Amino acid sequence: MNKHAILHKSDSIYSFALNPETAELRLRAAKGDILSAEVIYGQKHEFGTHRKTAPMNISATDGLFDYFTVRLRLDDKRLAYIFLLTDTEGNKHYYSEDGLTDTYDFSLAFYNFFQLAYINENDVLPQCEWLSRAVVYQIFVDRFCRGENSGVGDYINIKWGQKPTSKSFAGGNLDGITQKLDYLCDLGINTLYLTPIFTSKSNHKYDISDYYNVDPHFGGNAAFDRLMTACKARGMRVILDAVFNHCSENLKEFQDVCEKGQASPYFDWFVIHGDRPTKRPLNYEVFASCDYMPKWNTANPEVQEYLCRVGEYWIKEYGIDGWRLDVSDEVSHEFWRKFRRHIKALGSDKVLIGENWHDSASYLGGDQFDSIMNYAFTKAMLDYFAGGTLSVQGLCSKLNGLLMRNMTHVNHMMLNLLDSHDTHRFYTECGKDENKLLLALAVETFMPGATMIYYGTEILTEGGYDPDSRRCFDWNKDDPFKQKLKQLLKYKKLRALTEGDAVFREQGGALVIERIADGQKVTLIVNNTNNAVCVANTTVKPFGYKVIVE
Amino acid sequence: MNKHAILHKSDSIYSFALNPETAELRLRAAKGDILSAEVIYGQKHEFGTHRKTAPMNISATDGLFDYFTVRLRLDDKRLAYIFLLTDTEGNKHYYSEDGLTDTYDFSLAFYNFFQLAYINENDVLPQCEWLSRAVVYQIFVDRFCRGENSGVGDYINIKWGQKPTSKSFAGGNLDGITQKLDYLCDLGINTLYLTPIFTSKSNHKYDISDYYNVDPHFGGNAAFDRLMTACKARGMRVILDAVFNHCSENLKEFQDVCEKGQASPYFDWFVIHGDRPTKRPLNYEVFASCDYMPKWNTANPEVQEYLCRVGEYWIKEYGIDGWRLDVSDEVSHEFWRKFRRHIKALGSDKVLIGENWHDSASYLGGDQFDSIMNYAFTKAMLDYFAGGTLSVQGLCSKLNGLLMRNMTHVNHMMLNLLDSHDTHRFYTECGKDENKLLLALAVETFMPGATMIYYGTEILTEGGYDPDSRRCFDWNKDDPFKQKLKQLLKYKKLRALTEGDAVFREQGGALVIERIADGQKVTLIVNNTNNAVCVANTTVKPFGYKVIVE
Repeated sequence: MNKHAILHKSDSIYSFALNPETAELRLRAAKGDILSAEVIYGQKHEFGTHRKTAPMNISATDGLFDYFTVRLRLDDKRLAYIFLLTDTEGNKHYYSEDGLTDTYDFSLAFYNFFQLAYINENDVLPQCEWLSRAVVYQIFVDRFCRGENSGVGDYINIKWGQKPTSKSFAGGNLDGITQKLDYLCDLGINTLYLTPIFTSKSNHKYDISDYYNVDPHFGGNAAFDRLMTACKARGMRVILDAVFNHCSENLKEFQDVCEKGQASPYFDWFVIHGDRPTKRPLNYEVFASCDYMPKWNTANPEVQEYLCRVGEYWIKEYGIDGWRLDVSDEVSHEFWRKFRRHIKALGSDKVLIGENWHDSASYLGGDQFDSIMNYAFTKAMLDYFAGGTLSVQGLCSKLNGLLMRNMTHVNHMMLNLLDSHDTHRFYTECGKDENKLLLALAVETFMPGATMIYYGTEILTEGGYDPDSRRCFDWNKDDPFKQKLKQLLKYKKLRALTEGDAVFREQGGALVIERIADGQKVTLIVNNTNNAVCVANTTVKPFGYKVIVE
Repeated sequence: MNKHAILHKSDSIYSFALNPETAELRLRAAKGDILSAEVIYGQKHEFGTHRKTAPMNISATDGLFDYFTVRLRLDDKRLAYIFLLTDTEGNKHYYSEDGLTDTYDFSLAFYNFFQLAYINENDVLPQCEWLSRAVVYQIFVDRFCRGENSGVGDYINIKWGQKPTSKSFAGGNLDGITQKLDYLCDLGINTLYLTPIFTSKSNHKYDISDYYNVDPHFGGNAAFDRLMTACKARGMRVILDAVFNHCSENLKEFQDVCEKGQASPYFDWFVIHGDRPTKRPLNYEVFASCDYMPKWNTANPEVQEYLCRVGEYWIKEYGIDGWRLDVSDEVSHEFWRKFRRHIKALGSDKVLIGENWHDSASYLGGDQFDSIMNYAFTKAMLDYFAGGTLSVQGLCSKLNGLLMRNMTHVNHMMLNLLDSHDTHRFYTECGKDENKLLLALAVETFMPGATMIYYGTEILTEGGYDPDSRRCFDWNKDDPFKQKLKQLLKYKKLRALTEGDAVFREQGGALVIERIADGQKVTLIVNNTNNAVCVANTTVKPFGYKVIVE
């Protein structure tokens, strides 16, 4: 047995409450190393004398490890436990905070058992159910649709359909989205995620100068009101983009600091290394190296209040369903904790989704975000379908491993995506192979969590990196691919896909994804090869997929 | 190379800011497996093109693993990094969020580098310097000293020195402590930690019925004021015991609930499974199985406010230096985060020390406690000096491993202890071998963090488990051991012991602890054998220790 491979940690992604009555425990071991794993558990204060045992099962396997899992329904909220492992030679090993031992002294267990000391309800992350059923359509507003009767458009500097530069304004706006809601509903979309809509001098509007007013280019607050009303009428949800890492240099508070320097009451709202902001040399903190995007000082309680108020405003006044949090990993944990308290006080179903591209366990413990944009999934899809650097076995390992990065209920809220305004278009990355795009979309649909579709994917929109990934939607194009996507997205209504556990495995050269909920099993077979494959009596054509509902 | 052993995680105990300008990174590998480890790092947004490299060194080795560490002084607060490992066969391995790979594509690094995305100052745990210099004396108040002129003592039910039962009242009080402050200062004590002093029907007072009034048995608030004044005159610090997991059934708010049931405005202050509290069957949550200690509902904002106000009161009104947090692992994280904000607003040097007996990374990330009572250290000391179940190599492994459980600055605030009111006395556990006790105290003194001495240790007080560990201090006994302890505690003033990194290793059968700060190295050699040992030209007699200051 590879002792170095064994891993567990109390009160972590290995040990958490799924809900106030249920604990999930995970134990990591080297692949194939452990014949059986059991948890020995009991009430914390009585563990020396009263204990139960439960078997654990392998719920995921990645490149190196098997992950044994057990869910315990608890009568008492104070859980103490250790593990008993049997290796392939039949040897027994106890595993506690003191590591692996041949024997275990239960009379001294209070020093070294693992524990969930007490499951306090206010520490348990509630699973926001609608998010696991969400089919999200991401819209880069300037490029989706220009509404009829949209008034003066003299800021528009390209023709609709012309290739955009980083300075292009094409005239897409909120009334344009409102007009297309029936189109989106028909496609199977039930949630919109809009890139920023607030007042800003740029086309992307990630440099916001007024957080309380929708940009006039997009139609102002009145147009947003019309959009929200139309969405609600159709039961559609709306997620907006919260740009709280930085703002625009045009924000009036930053302008005040530029004018008055340290004398400005807003001086500490930003991070300025000097008496007043200068661009050459750049003496204030910014996003990336963009001098027009000064970083908010989210350690300042006044800034915290300001941004929390913004976050609340659009929920209270317009009824939005949550926020995607831009550059969220560069913003302080302390701020996000406060922001969460403010937002969740308005409704536990108001979601918070971080733009964290990396392993984000430190944001996803229940005190900050509900989930993140699943760019690690994006990378795995690119490596398998586009780069070809990942085998199907490698993909299974990767996807199983990703599930083990976070708590199970976080997985069910994850915002999965193949591409976005910040990446190349997946279709283009696949060499414009629509079969591969469809297979990748099938995998995405079967991932636990929300399925996000970048606008235009349904008509095979091409695009390289920004600004090319932000082309105008071609409303003259009607591609049969749309029907294929529509067909696929229907599976999202199946209970197994929204509630079920997920297992990824290779069979006969195909990727097999099983989603299993009580009484329902749905299997996706993805054949990313140029030969027909046969899995469980089902033949899948080259570069095709099949779904089996049982 | 054992691939399964390699471990690192962004924004965790493996990756943290020591201060706003310095990141510490740790990488775990199987012992002896890695010839050299380097970190390749850069500014997050420029990592694809601009990078530096720094070597890592083994800072700790435990039973299975080497821990490579590097501290990076950062010009920019956005850190991206991966590792480059050379195994003993000379093979190179990259290590990123995508695991171990032979090659690494820096152009796609933004998908899978490790990161400290931005070191926000408000997320960095400040190291409370005084705690690393603290020599803490824990006093079980009823048993330490009864002050002269202490008034009516008709509650006292044992003679001073008589063996206590769980119901004994011996009459120790705060004026008694005040009288003995010079004695304690002379011993080398600079901090008091008092078990609860607030109004309570028990001798231990862990069931508090009035959080705003010191128990009359202990002399009331006036006696506490006298004690605080006397401590401040001597530059001594005082830590009190915050019992916020549960209270006494006599608390007036709980009594109101007993009387009025659901009609009481305090009904939701507790966790009651029914219309009103009943003891048979016990239908409300309590500490352990003690029906006289109802658990606070710390999910209730009113309770949170109430307890935060208590925490603030004794700091604001009496100037105490912090709180030891009773049964802190069973109280909600959310409450502790709020409590920390309230307390630290009164002074960053007001300390919060949890009574967590277990691995507590989830409480020690900077948002909740400064440190915990180091009972894992207690266990290691018992196993080595008392139980004999740990070899000296095993002890080194264990102590090095404990340092790797938490961030370095948390280690420097840890409250180390050999025993307390909740354990057997260490002296008794060692079979009343004063040499072993002294050696263990020497190790404790050389641990990073505060050194806690349980009252009476200096006169070799005996005692088994509660109530026997809570005997009356024998003021008629003057043991030469006191001078030995006094001598030992003087080392605590050395800068290397308060600031220095610690390394534990075995040499010639002895335990060697090195503490190294800039310009100072202090070595402790502990010989827990019945043979003289010679380490670095220094001979240490059987069951003796030596300190070398360089």
